[in-house]
Parts: sequence; structure tokens; C-alpha cells
Amino acid sequence: MPRFRLALAQTNPIVGHRSHNAQTLLECARVAYDQGAQAMLSGELSLTGYPIEDLALRDNFLELSRASLAELASALQAEGMGDMAVIVGHPDGPHTLADDATILHSAARATNSASVLLGGKIQATYAKHHLPTYAVFDESRTFVPGTETLILRMAGVDAGILICEDLWRSDGPVETLTGYPLGLLLVPNASPFQRDKATVREPLVTQRAQEMNTHVAYVNIAGGQDDLVFDGDSMIVSPAGHRTVSSAWFDEDVTVADLEIPSFGAEAPLPAGARRVELAGVRAPGSQPLPPPTPRTDDPLELVWQAITTGIRDYVNKNSFPSVILGLSGGIDSALCASLATDALGPERVFGVGMPSAHSSEHSLEDAQALAENLGLSYRVEGITKLVAGFDEQLGLTGLAAENVQARARGVLLMALSNQEGHLVLTTGNKSELAVGYSTIYGDSVGGFAPIKDVPKTLVWELARWRNARAQSLGETPPIPANSIDKPPSAELRPDQTDQDSLPDYELLDQILELLVVQGYDAPQIVARGFEEALVHEVVALVSRAEWKRRQGAIGPRISSVAFGRDRRLPITNTLSQFERPE
Amino acid sequence: MPRFRLALAQTNPIVGHRSHNAQTLLECARVAYDQGAQAMLSGELSLTGYPIEDLALRDNFLELSRASLAELASALQAEGMGDMAVIVGHPDGPHTLADDATILHSAARATNSASVLLGGKIQATYAKHHLPTYAVFDESRTFVPGTETLILRMAGVDAGILICEDLWRSDGPVETLTGYPLGLLLVPNASPFQRDKATVREPLVTQRAQEMNTHVAYVNIAGGQDDLVFDGDSMIVSPAGHRTVSSAWFDEDVTVADLEIPSFGAEAPLPAGARRVELAGVRAPGSQPLPPPTPRTDDPLELVWQAITTGIRDYVNKNSFPSVILGLSGGIDSALCASLATDALGPERVFGVGMPSAHSSEHSLEDAQALAENLGLSYRVEGITKLVAGFDEQLGLTGLAAENVQARARGVLLMALSNQEGHLVLTTGNKSELAVGYSTIYGDSVGGFAPIKDVPKTLVWELARWRNARAQSLGETPPIPANSIDKPPSAELRPDQTDQDSLPDYELLDQILELLVVQGYDAPQIVARGFEEALVHEVVALVSRAEWKRRQGAIGPRISSVAFGRDRRLPITNTLSQFERPE
Repeated sequence: MPRFRLALAQTNPIVGHRSHNAQTLLECARVAYDQGAQAMLSGELSLTGYPIEDLALRDNFLELSRASLAELASALQAEGMGDMAVIVGHPDGPHTLADDATILHSAARATNSASVLLGGKIQATYAKHHLPTYAVFDESRTFVPGTETLILRMAGVDAGILICEDLWRSDGPVETLTGYPLGLLLVPNASPFQRDKATVREPLVTQRAQEMNTHVAYVNIAGGQDDLVFDGDSMIVSPAGHRTVSSAWFDEDVTVADLEIPSFGAEAPLPAGARRVELAGVRAPGSQPLPPPTPRTDDPLELVWQAITTGIRDYVNKNSFPSVILGLSGGIDSALCASLATDALGPERVFGVGMPSAHSSEHSLEDAQALAENLGLSYRVEGITKLVAGFDEQLGLTGLAAENVQARARGVLLMALSNQEGHLVLTTGNKSELAVGYSTIYGDSVGGFAPIKDVPKTLVWELARWRNARAQSLGETPPIPANSIDKPPSAELRPDQTDQDSLPDYELLDQILELLVVQGYDAPQIVARGFEEALVHEVVALVSRAEWKRRQGAIGPRISSVAFGRDRRLPITNTLSQFERPE
Repeated sequence: MPRFRLALAQTNPIVGHRSHNAQTLLECARVAYDQGAQAMLSGELSLTGYPIEDLALRDNFLELSRASLAELASALQAEGMGDMAVIVGHPDGPHTLADDATILHSAARATNSASVLLGGKIQATYAKHHLPTYAVFDESRTFVPGTETLILRMAGVDAGILICEDLWRSDGPVETLTGYPLGLLLVPNASPFQRDKATVREPLVTQRAQEMNTHVAYVNIAGGQDDLVFDGDSMIVSPAGHRTVSSAWFDEDVTVADLEIPSFGAEAPLPAGARRVELAGVRAPGSQPLPPPTPRTDDPLELVWQAITTGIRDYVNKNSFPSVILGLSGGIDSALCASLATDALGPERVFGVGMPSAHSSEHSLEDAQALAENLGLSYRVEGITKLVAGFDEQLGLTGLAAENVQARARGVLLMALSNQEGHLVLTTGNKSELAVGYSTIYGDSVGGFAPIKDVPKTLVWELARWRNARAQSLGETPPIPANSIDKPPSAELRPDQTDQDSLPDYELLDQILELLVVQGYDAPQIVARGFEEALVHEVVALVSRAEWKRRQGAIGPRISSVAFGRDRRLPITNTLSQFERPE
């Protein structure tokens, strides 16, 4: 069977940074070209990054994106790569729309598109039909749907093109192209990581490859963008449904592959609603040998670890922070965050601060100190006793007010060091705490990035044990002190306090939160699964009442299918518990 | 011409509080019934409040809403009002959808509907066709569109029914119904206040009334829901295009009106795609005289004032806060917020705190004191000099770090008083500051509600002057000290500081911000309007860099067409200035 040599270019774009993103695509093209690729496929909106949100509504943004696309086509030609078809994702517009749409103040005027660059020119452009508007996606807000189905004919192969959500839906372009003898289906994606994503993404690609009897080349973007982490994991699946090519997890990667095309040169009538574009001048496939595939992990905890470290690294670097700072309490949450940050950035860019109070136990300072030594990060101790006494004495604080002021003195202290020394403050709260509001707003919630905000407490422990075991297996010192893992969790804001004074056991709490927040079940459905009714209602009420705090919280990497943030949009003012509980 | 007596029920629902909302509708029905109304029209989602956001994705929420609707129908019948048609807005579902939609994790399964209650039963249900997904609206996320056009035949009149956005679009049900001899078009709405709304809402209703040759009854909801304030302003416009009925601004209101129906009993073929429902047993119109209309203001500044006080009052009351507390600096922002809060809640629910530092001028404390006396609110002074010295000495703070720690000590102080005494903290930043990031995060930004977050600094001054003039015209003491209005604005975080050390003149800044943020223009478009290029780029960069702070900010009432919040969704990590500025 004849052969087509295709490159998958999995890039890590910075939203809005067209010169950086175009330069990255040009460098990938060089790698692909030198390996004899005939075409290179990059991810969804690879030119501008994803998600661009309301930037898509700005004419100037759209016009400059168009200009960058044309410049990239010229640069590819100028560098002698004009005979390789390069597929680039970009917003296309502003389009002129019908009257009604334009009376609306902020109506979308762009399509979410992918264009083929060849011979120094933009040869064809496909616009995404299905605009996801659920979970973290808002594409109906920012884009208008495409209406045309496109077939690219190049070097004897007919290639279909879809963008992300188009592949997930059986109507629209999938329906139009099914039955047509495609040699190849090209699919740029911006598909963020979540723990269960691998169990839905690959089966879907496999199903479509078999149904449509074609190779499916699925290219994702990589890297962190605010709360989203794109895990890469680009792939090719053969018409028989076998995954033949895999790109790296989370990182930039160019993977070149030879595809045996069964339907090479096949002629068939064009399906209704489809347009075919002849791409003349695509080079013959190279014959140089291709490098062997790089081994990839399939350990689910390692993937979560990589997701979070990628999220931290890209937030810090893409926003030009020199370093991060965080409070080290001796507890498990801050220990895990420090380990993650050190793996992400190196110990020289991580600064820890022990901030003991009168209620801190001795082991707290010792555990923090041991952690800092294990990780090799910069560590200092700044007590808060005198700072807190100032507020307590002046205002006569008692009870919760006196507890919170300790957390807030630590917040002020970390922000002062951030202002003085230029670090980004990391806030160390986990998803279980965030859910039930077990945190002090403007206290321990202070910071620009929250590494474990989507990690439930039980997973915090799992990840800590996993990281220590990994160190052990490599003959390194386990970073996290065993005592930080084993001792009962405590906020240490009053004598002998533990989390379980105020909260249900974390094993139980996390099960209820998984059903409530991630699976989207409501109270009666959770009770029906065997949880105690009063407890379920208590948790539902806590989660509802903490909405205002979460709204003022830092962003952090999403690792589940429903993180707190744009995944889950609920009013602050609502009487939800009345709705959840039969009156 | 025959007569139809219609009641407009403009309610102030609490999101999620079905028993409260149903009770309110029942009370409105009593008023309407006693005035002889044949039908009562309420606003969009009047049973559940608007916007319900992701609550619409929960089966239990939908099932309980359905149950409440049926109970309300029974209650109306039981109270002897079964022969008045009552139109209630509610989410309808969960509907069973096609395969593809349900594979998506959080797919919408409800319609945004309105039902007619009559004779103790739900007689007919209309589902909204056009789901707004722009500005503050996310309806494509949470609802599926309706497909049927409905005509209600009652007491010899054919009434069409549309929901909100349906009226704004000329395709869909408006197209279907145009040309049919409707006597009346019933339109429930949830249309939030913005300063220019009156200039678009009434002309649109007028245009449709004339085009479709029918009375249009437009009923809005009223009151504050988180950041949105629904201004009421329900109306009836006659087929000739005259506004014949107006409900109150912002408040609950039942307005009953007699309509002369030109097309009474007219027979015409049913338009394709429409269904007609006969509503048997609607009573004859009452003949009791109707009360004269209540006078309404048309002062644009008074409407802004009412929008903000409504937003404060409803956030505080719907979330059951006993009182509010805020820092009084002697400056204009906190003075305006205190005046607004006092007008919203009464002086006994407002607590002011003067928090002088070493850099506070003498007039600051005097002006704060005078304000508190004028307003009659509880006032105390808590200096921060010692609190700040603790941090300064321990950490050796200088420059920006030393400035910010003052604002943060004030934040801790206010939160401690909030924890100790139960007040909601109001944060007093204005829109201009929020735009350019001229605030200390976890300092002056601390609080659960931000009354003037959508008020630019120049409008802050206007509103202050308006409120003082209003007091003067009523023979009362102007609440805001003249000195707070007239002195140059300063954060007073270092000696002799003024805002204009760091920022352009507010007149100029607000003009640029209006173009950038509200009108959505980009830098070249603003420069083309005659503003200095370097200044425009500086402002664009400041606004872009402050995105992370705004994300952690409190909500507050939206009074413009683009407030910071769900109106304007932009990535934190982006290199926008590169896109705005030709490279």
C-alpha cells in the first residue's frame, strides 16, 4: 500500500503570544521537514493558544492573527519548506454576520478554524461546526459555527479535517464524511487533562477510525494555561482501530509516522455539503528512518503529578515570575505543594516560610524544616506570635475571630515577602477544604496559584506516598517527612485542634464530595447510594455556603472532570439547601 | 372594542427559594384577582429566580421545580383564583435527549419555559427558542432550545407568548407570529439593569408591537441577585406603539391594566409551526376602577443610585447578613459606599471604622467622622500604626511592600470585626481602580460585596454630588462632606501621595476605560479616536496585568453594559499587549 508521511506537532502555545507560537510552529516544521514529512498537523488554535475567551470578540486580535498566519506561510516557504502542508489552528474573522446577530453587544464574529499552509500561501480553511458550551468550554459565546465540510487532496490522499468537538458528535461533518474513502482524518484538538480522560478520548478516536475506515490523526496542544493543563497525548489510530503513534504527555513533541493508506487515489462522488481542495505541490514522502518511539508512563498518579507540575511551571514561566513562595506548616498540604513546586521549578526557585504561632506543635516546625532540607529549597522561619498579639490586644478577639487572625497574619506576611522579593505566592488548600469552606479567606487562601485546589484530601495523601515511593525506587531521599503524612491533619489555630473536630472523616467526606461535585448528583441521589441523610445535607449546605469564598480564590490546575472554577457555575445568593432537601 | 384586563406581576425572586417565590406569586395573584384581572403575567423563571446557572443541570432541582409549579396551580385554585390564567416562568425538565447530547458530562436537559396555570392545572407550556450566550448570559450552557410556537386562546383573545431573547430576534417565533391577528403578546423577561438599557428596551418593544400589530406585555423581574440588578420597568406597549403601562423601577409591583383588543375573536389560519391552546374558563374582565399610575423617576443618576442600593439590600437580606461594615478613609469612595449602604439598609445596620496610619492626614479622620455623623451610622476608630509596625520591624519592609502592608492590616482588622460581630464587609474600590489594578489585594479589596465596583471614578464624584443635591432639595443635611468630594484622591500609603502620581488624570483614564472595557474597542481603535498612543498602551497593559486581582475580587452590582465579572472573560496568562501593539 502507498505510504504518507505525517508529522504530529504537539506545541505548548502561550495565549495571545502570536510571535512565540508562530516561532514554535516554524521550529516544529523544521524537525518534521528534516524527517521527510509531507504534512504537519498542529493542535486547535495552535497560533493563538486555547482558550482565547473574549479575545475572540476583538477585531484587532483577529486581524493580527490573520496577519501572523500569512507571515508563517511566507516564513515556511522562505525557509525551503513550502512543499510540506502545514495545518495551523487559528481564530478566523471578523466575519460579517446577518443583522440580528450584530445588534447584540458582544456577538461572536469569528470561527474556530484550521488552515492549510503550502507554497507560501493559505490554501484552504476549515471552520469548526460543533462549539462546546459545557464544562470549561464557552465556545458558543466566542465563536460562530462553520457550515462547510472540507476534504484536502494531497499527494494522492484524500484527508478529511475536523476540529475537536466535531469528532465527538456523530452529526455534522462526521456524518458527511462517513462512507467517503478518506485516507486520513486530521483532527486538531485542545483537550484538557482530567484523570479519566484517557478512558474516553482513545476509545472515541478508535471508534471513529473504525466507523470511517480511515487513519485518524489526533493532535492535542500541551502545557498549562491558567487552570487548564493540556496533556498532549496526541495519537494516530489506524482504520483497524490500533493506536500506532503516541506523542509525549504534557510536553512539546514532534512525532513523524508513516501511514499505509488503503484508499490511496480512490475516486468517489463528493458527499453533499462537502468541498474538495486540491493541494498541488506536496512533496513525496521521505525515506529516512524514523526514530523509535519514546517510552511513556501509564501510571495514573504520575500523570496527575505531571499535570500539576506542568500547571505550576507554565503559570510561573508564562507570567514571568522568578520564583514562588509558600508557607510550610509541617502539614501534608504544604509539604505536597512544596514537592510539586520543586519538581516543577527546581529548588532554587522555591522559597518556604515556617510561620509558627503559640498553637503550633513542636513537630510542625521540625517537619517543615526536614521537608525543606529534603527538597533543598530556601527556608526561613518568621513567627507570627507578636503580629497576632497586636490584633488580639487591640480588638479583644476571641473564638473564630482569634483563629482567623492567625491565618491572616500569615497571609499578610507571605504577601509582604512577595512584594519585597518578587515571588509568586502559592496557596496550599486542597479540594476537600475548598469544597466545605474549611479555610480562612485572605488567610491561608492568599496567593496567585493554588497547586492542589483540585486534589481531594485523600488523593493528597496518595500523591505524597507515591512521590516518596518514587524517590525510594530511584535511590533518592523521600522528600515528604513520614510524620507529615501520618499525623492527624490540623489547622493548629487553637490548642489540640484537628480537622475532624469540624469535618467528617476525610474518606467519607471525599466520597460524598466526589458524588456531589464531580458526578453532579444531588442530595437524594447521594443518600440513595447509602450515605447518611443528615451528613449529606450537612455537606451540601457547607458546599453551598462556601461559594463566595471559592469565587475569590486563586486558580489552580484542573485534574478532575469538575474542578471548582469555570466547570461549576452557581449563584452565591441561593437557597440551594431548600431545593436539595424536601421541605 | 372589547376589553381584556391583564395584570403584570413584577416579583423579586430569590434564586433557588421555590417556597418564597411561589408564595410571592400567590400574593401577587391575590392583588391581581381582587382588581378583576383575567390573566397575570410574571417574569422569566419567576418560580426559581434568574439566573439559576448550573442548578439547571440538576435533576432534583428540576423535579422539585415541577412539583412547586403544580402546587402553585393547586393553591391558586384552592384560594378561589382558578379562573384567572397565571403565567409563571420555570425551568422545565429533565427532558430526554438524543444520544449525542447525553454523552457529554454536563449536558443541559432543561428548557427555559413559561406555563399557564388555570383551573388548578398546568394548561400549556412554552419553551424559549433563543438562548442568549453573550455578555452575562450563559443559556446555551444550561438550557436546550424550544422548537414550538404557542398561541393561547382565552376569553376571546389570541395571545402569543415569547420569552425575553425571543423578542429580540426577528427569526423564530417572532417570524412565525407576525401577520397572525394576535390580540396580545405576553413576554416574561429577566433583563438586568444597565445605564443605557432604557434606550434599547423600550424601542425594541415598541418596534415589535407595531410590526406585529398587537399589545405587547413585557414583564421583567426585579431586585438584586449577586452581581445583577433587575430593574423591573415592566410595560405594556399598544399596537400603535404607545407605552400605556409602566411598573415600578427595581421593586416588586403588581400593575393591572385594561387593553382594548382590536383583533378580539378574529379567526385566521394557524401559522406553520404554531400550536393553539384553548384555555377554557377564564373569567370575564372585572369592572372595578383601577388605581392611578404611580409617578416614576426618569433621572439617570437616581436610577444608578437605586440600582446600587437595590443590589446591596438584596445581597445582604437574601444572604441573611444582619449588618455591613466598611472602612471610612475620609475619601470619596468609602464615603459614597457608606451613603449607598445607609440608603439601602438604614443607619442602624451600617458600621464604619476609621483606620488611620502615620500617613493619614488630619482631614481624613475629620471627614470620616463628619460623614458618619451625617449618616447617623455606628462609627469607631482603630488605628493601624502599631499593627503595621509589627510587620515592618520583623520583616524590614520598604517601598511597595511597606505601602501594601498598611492596606492589608486594615483588611485583617475589618475581617476580624466581621468575624467577631457578624457584619458583611463591604469593599469600596471603584471601577477605574479595579481596571488598572490600583488597589492592594487582600487589603482594601477585602470584602464580600463591592458596591461601586462598576462605577468609574468620575461617576463616583457625580453620584456623590447628586446625593448631596438631593438631600439639599429635601431640606436634609448633605451626607458627604464637601472636602471628601473636592480634595485630590489619595491612597495615603506614603507621605504626600496622590492617585495622579501613578495614574493618568481620571477624566482621561475613564474615557479610555469606557472605550476599552465597555465599548470593547482595542488599542488602535482608541488611538484612532485621538488619544495619545503611549498612554493607551500603558492603560491596556495595566488592565491586562490586573486580571488576576480582579478574579479574586468581590462581586458587586453591574450598572454598565460591561462590568468586570461574567461580562468580560479573559485569560490571566496572555500576552495581550503584544497583540494590541503591532510588533
